[in-house]
Amino acid sequence: MSTLTVQLGERSYPIHIGRGLLHRAGEFLKERGIAQKSPLLIVSDEHTASFYLATLESNLQKSGYKTESFVVKPGETSKSLAVFEQVITAAIQGGLDRHSAVIALGGGVVGDLAGFVAASYMRGVKFVQIPTTILAHDSSVGGKVGINHPLAKNMIGAFHQPELVLYDVDTLSTLPPREVSAGLAEMIKHGLIWDANFAYWCRDHAADLLALDAAALEYGLEKGCSVKAEVVSRDERENDLRAILNLGHTIGHAIEAIAGYGEFLHGEAISIGMVGSALLGVKLGADPALVEVTRDMLSSLRLPTSLPAHLDTDRLLEAMMHDKKFKEGSITFVVPRSIGRVEVVKDIPVSDIRQVIEQLKEEA
Amino acid sequence: MSTLTVQLGERSYPIHIGRGLLHRAGEFLKERGIAQKSPLLIVSDEHTASFYLATLESNLQKSGYKTESFVVKPGETSKSLAVFEQVITAAIQGGLDRHSAVIALGGGVVGDLAGFVAASYMRGVKFVQIPTTILAHDSSVGGKVGINHPLAKNMIGAFHQPELVLYDVDTLSTLPPREVSAGLAEMIKHGLIWDANFAYWCRDHAADLLALDAAALEYGLEKGCSVKAEVVSRDERENDLRAILNLGHTIGHAIEAIAGYGEFLHGEAISIGMVGSALLGVKLGADPALVEVTRDMLSSLRLPTSLPAHLDTDRLLEAMMHDKKFKEGSITFVVPRSIGRVEVVKDIPVSDIRQVIEQLKEEA
Repeated sequence: MSTLTVQLGERSYPIHIGRGLLHRAGEFLKERGIAQKSPLLIVSDEHTASFYLATLESNLQKSGYKTESFVVKPGETSKSLAVFEQVITAAIQGGLDRHSAVIALGGGVVGDLAGFVAASYMRGVKFVQIPTTILAHDSSVGGKVGINHPLAKNMIGAFHQPELVLYDVDTLSTLPPREVSAGLAEMIKHGLIWDANFAYWCRDHAADLLALDAAALEYGLEKGCSVKAEVVSRDERENDLRAILNLGHTIGHAIEAIAGYGEFLHGEAISIGMVGSALLGVKLGADPALVEVTRDMLSSLRLPTSLPAHLDTDRLLEAMMHDKKFKEGSITFVVPRSIGRVEVVKDIPVSDIRQVIEQLKEEA
Repeated sequence: MSTLTVQLGERSYPIHIGRGLLHRAGEFLKERGIAQKSPLLIVSDEHTASFYLATLESNLQKSGYKTESFVVKPGETSKSLAVFEQVITAAIQGGLDRHSAVIALGGGVVGDLAGFVAASYMRGVKFVQIPTTILAHDSSVGGKVGINHPLAKNMIGAFHQPELVLYDVDTLSTLPPREVSAGLAEMIKHGLIWDANFAYWCRDHAADLLALDAAALEYGLEKGCSVKAEVVSRDERENDLRAILNLGHTIGHAIEAIAGYGEFLHGEAISIGMVGSALLGVKLGADPALVEVTRDMLSSLRLPTSLPAHLDTDRLLEAMMHDKKFKEGSITFVVPRSIGRVEVVKDIPVSDIRQVIEQLKEEA
């Protein structure tokens, strides 16, 4: 097992990564001082719950915890105010008090939803993340939690740090191959923004990662979480540095917003977005090879690197304007200068973005 | 104008109390560095908006701010998830960004609702309180914001400190007499828990306060806010000391929960609750005169001090069990030892509370 600590003063917390951790959950909760008298609420989705909920409940109960659970439908639609209210109702009916903890067992959707319940139930209770996807290594570090509004994603939320993240790599074995690749997009993103060696390592170990080799996953997740943790430690409330984590996300969110439901997974959309950012980087002076190296890295992880022609350029641009990274009249973009080094550039003209989108389509 | 500062480290903020402040709102916002480029959202209720919204908007616009507004129905029903979603929609449609501020213009309901919008919109934007009731001097200090769940009040919320509180005592002139008294209940509560002289001052100046004399109000609100600010500074997240602010609230919330809508205002319910707490204090050893002095103080402010016989004792007790101050199997109560001095007592037997409720009815 590897353990890393997210350094946030009195809100610091450990991330444990390794095999078999689900069977030791109670032990880790006790270690973090989570009260045994007060009921826990486990939030999960139908898919994840069918594999792992019983194991988690039985381990927690064996350790003396009372558990309640609430299972939502898989997918982004569960990040709604209506489902949020249902989870709060379950918390009240389950008798959760101010000393209780809410546990997210699942991927990013469950983490964001359960985290916002933890942030707002009785004005905030403890929160534990048990991510069961590769993608969630990103969302489980940093304390960003929230739900969607019909007009915009992640519009309602909070910064609420977990007490503990338990990453049991065994739970990744049930991931469909497409979600494995999509999760690896966020993993390699952490290399692309901060650590060139790690980005090349991801490319060179793509076969092991795609085959869910436990040792490769443990290393890759630990590295990915470390980069995220380092950035978050330096800028918890997203004042400046933290923006670099959005590499590929401005274009990626726009793709997600206008494409049909299920056409792109989040990781696939940001993979295309990261190629777009590389194109923009070259436009702003980076070595032209940057685009090919980036494409090659992402392709090795079986990720898409170009935009289907049917996605309308004007609608993509419009979606970007509505994105919350659009501040006070200018488009702000995270732009790579080289592999492992990015910069936040303000006031990028819309015409440049339009060209990048057209280039992303040409290569399809 | 009096100004006091709530000391919370980097989250410290000023409370300005005086006449004519609504006409200087823009000046105070600029002083606190609130961005002029990003639109403001003013949240108010129909009643308050009819008197003061135009004045506030025109002053802010004169100072170079863009303003949006959203007006809700007066009353507790607006503290719902449905209305919360409407306000968020208004914020998105009004183009509020991360540098925007949400302004609460109104009483406690508007403050709690707008504050939770500010706490959760884009994971938190700036918040300004412009309270227009006496009662709101309590809720506008301390950062507790939130909305109700059909099963329990204030169940969904956050701690989100304002940038600034602007208390224009001129806006109190439109308060109905019953709400004046109800507001004074929270004012004298601050004396009863912390400052005996102030409690006696409220009694001795009851006529001035009830007549809305500006000088008396300015002094009383400043004192009330100071006590609240002092307690909150020492315990922002309600770990221990802050609980004393709940004097009268356990019984008060139960009364509000089971009485018909509108039968009791919050201040009226906690007035009865504070007499109940005095009865409990005497039961636990305080001077028996405590009850009469407390009743006399509250009566001088034209507040109720006994419980109508038709409120069922069992239902009141049951409502208390559901209150979130009920922790881990024991009832915790704030109990006065003398005027100006209280203690938080755990594990009070339900039978004692039952007796207190019966006594509160006898005196009706």
